Amino acid sequence: MNLAKVMGTVVASQKDEKLDGLRFLLLATAGPDGQLSGSSVVAVDAVGAGPGEYVLYASGSSARQTRVTDGRPVDAVVMAIVDSWEVEGEERYHKGRDD
Amino acid sequence: MNLAKVMGTVVASQKDEKLDGLRFLLLATAGPDGQLSGSSVVAVDAVGAGPGEYVLYASGSSARQTRVTDGRPVDAVVMAIVDSWEVEGEERYHKGRDD
Amino acid sequence: MNLAKVMGTVVASQKDEKLDGLRFLLLATAGPDGQLSGSSVVAVDAVGAGPGEYVLYASGSSARQTRVTDGRPVDAVVMAIVDSWEVEGEERYHKGRDD
Amino acid sequence: MNLAKVMGTVVASQKDEKLDGLRFLLLATAGPDGQLSGSSVVAVDAVGAGPGEYVLYASGSSARQTRVTDGRPVDAVVMAIVDSWEVEGEERYHKGRDD
Amino acid sequence: MNLAKVMGTVVASQKDEKLDGLRFLLLATAGPDGQLSGSSVVAVDAVGAGPGEYVLYASGSSARQTRVTDGRPVDAVVMAIVDSWEVEGEERYHKGRDD
Repeated sequence: MNLAKVMGTVVASQKDEKLDGLRFLLLATAGPDGQLSGSSVVAVDAVGAGPGEYVLYASGSSARQTRVTDGRPVDAVVMAIVDSWEVEGEERYHKGRDD
Repeated sequence: MNLAKVMGTVVASQKDEKLDGLRFLLLATAGPDGQLSGSSVVAVDAVGAGPGEYVLYASGSSARQTRVTDGRPVDAVVMAIVDSWEVEGEERYHKGRDD
Repeated sequence: MNLAKVMGTVVASQKDEKLDGLRFLLLATAGPDGQLSGSSVVAVDAVGAGPGEYVLYASGSSARQTRVTDGRPVDAVVMAIVDSWEVEGEERYHKGRDD
Repeated sequence: MNLAKVMGTVVASQKDEKLDGLRFLLLATAGPDGQLSGSSVVAVDAVGAGPGEYVLYASGSSARQTRVTDGRPVDAVVMAIVDSWEVEGEERYHKGRDD
Repeated sequence: MNLAKVMGTVVASQKDEKLDGLRFLLLATAGPDGQLSGSSVVAVDAVGAGPGEYVLYASGSSARQTRVTDGRPVDAVVMAIVDSWEVEGEERYHKGRDD
């Protein structure tokens, strides 16, 4: 998985029928200090994440292991909203404080 | 998934028999501002996308989860044509306006 | 999938038993203008491709979806020989003319 | 697999239900000399690894082949704690000596 | 698959139970001229490869298609020891001569 920040949403009305009802989030990947790496990915939302939140996303076939993505042609899913993380015992991000 | 712009098509008559009837699109991957990243990928078209359109494509085993790609040796599929996307509440791309 | 040019072959006599009879091609990945990117990959040949030809190869589990690679420990397969491709309506490569 | 050093932990209370009970480790990937490469990944802990330890992690569908990750939407797992490694006959890392 | 040179071995006593008996090789990936690219990967040995040998390794789910790796949490396997390869008709590596 990777840390990422939700930057926005993508709208697509003409799509494979298995994608109906899914919400696409535009993510900016982030490093251990929360800084954005400059690369982006589009992931399906499985947890109700919103813009500005730090999340974890899973890629590849693992992205199809949630209830909402099972059997669908998607290769990335937001499967957790991050509360906090620490590096070498020091809290580097805490939701609400560092957003 | 990643954002990409359809740049063209690839023709291949000598190919694995499971590829008959598939249409191959040449994509340029794009970032959140719509700028092209300089890398490209070839994906099967599952939605009737055409040159100049922004699309979403899925990679890996997930690319085989559409009706047209099921069980075939393809690792990338265009599964949606993008209408618009927004970043931090601001619309960065809208089909027809920004093509 | 990615565009690539067949550069040569790899010979390996001591190998997993499931690899008997497969032919390994050394590929140089290529961009939309046919220029080589500088990176390489070794793929199993499923279509009778030869040195100098431009091909499409598929990676990951999708590489095991051809008859010759089914169930084998290979992660890349040449599944098509490219006849031509075009970018923005202009033909950038045509087999025989641009080799 | 890749070598990595455990840098910390990630806490996420709002997540896919299949993730309950898993422990998320923040890893910094490492090269053959133990130096950190500057990239990071978040992996599920399957072996009781702790901060400062060098580990091996597996990615993709292989990350779901442990008892704790089976069927879950995770794409990276720490499946071994490294005791030592050697390069060209010389031990480059030994746990306890080089931490 | 990719070309790589076996640089050494990794020892890990505390690991997932499915990893018992596997041998972990530290590989340096190599280009068509045999030069090392600077990146490394840890792969399970399925063919009895040793330090200094050039090998092919497969990644992802394909790494689980050998008898020794079936069903195990490993994402890279050495599935062939390279005898030789050629580029544009010229032999670039021959085991014994170029080691």
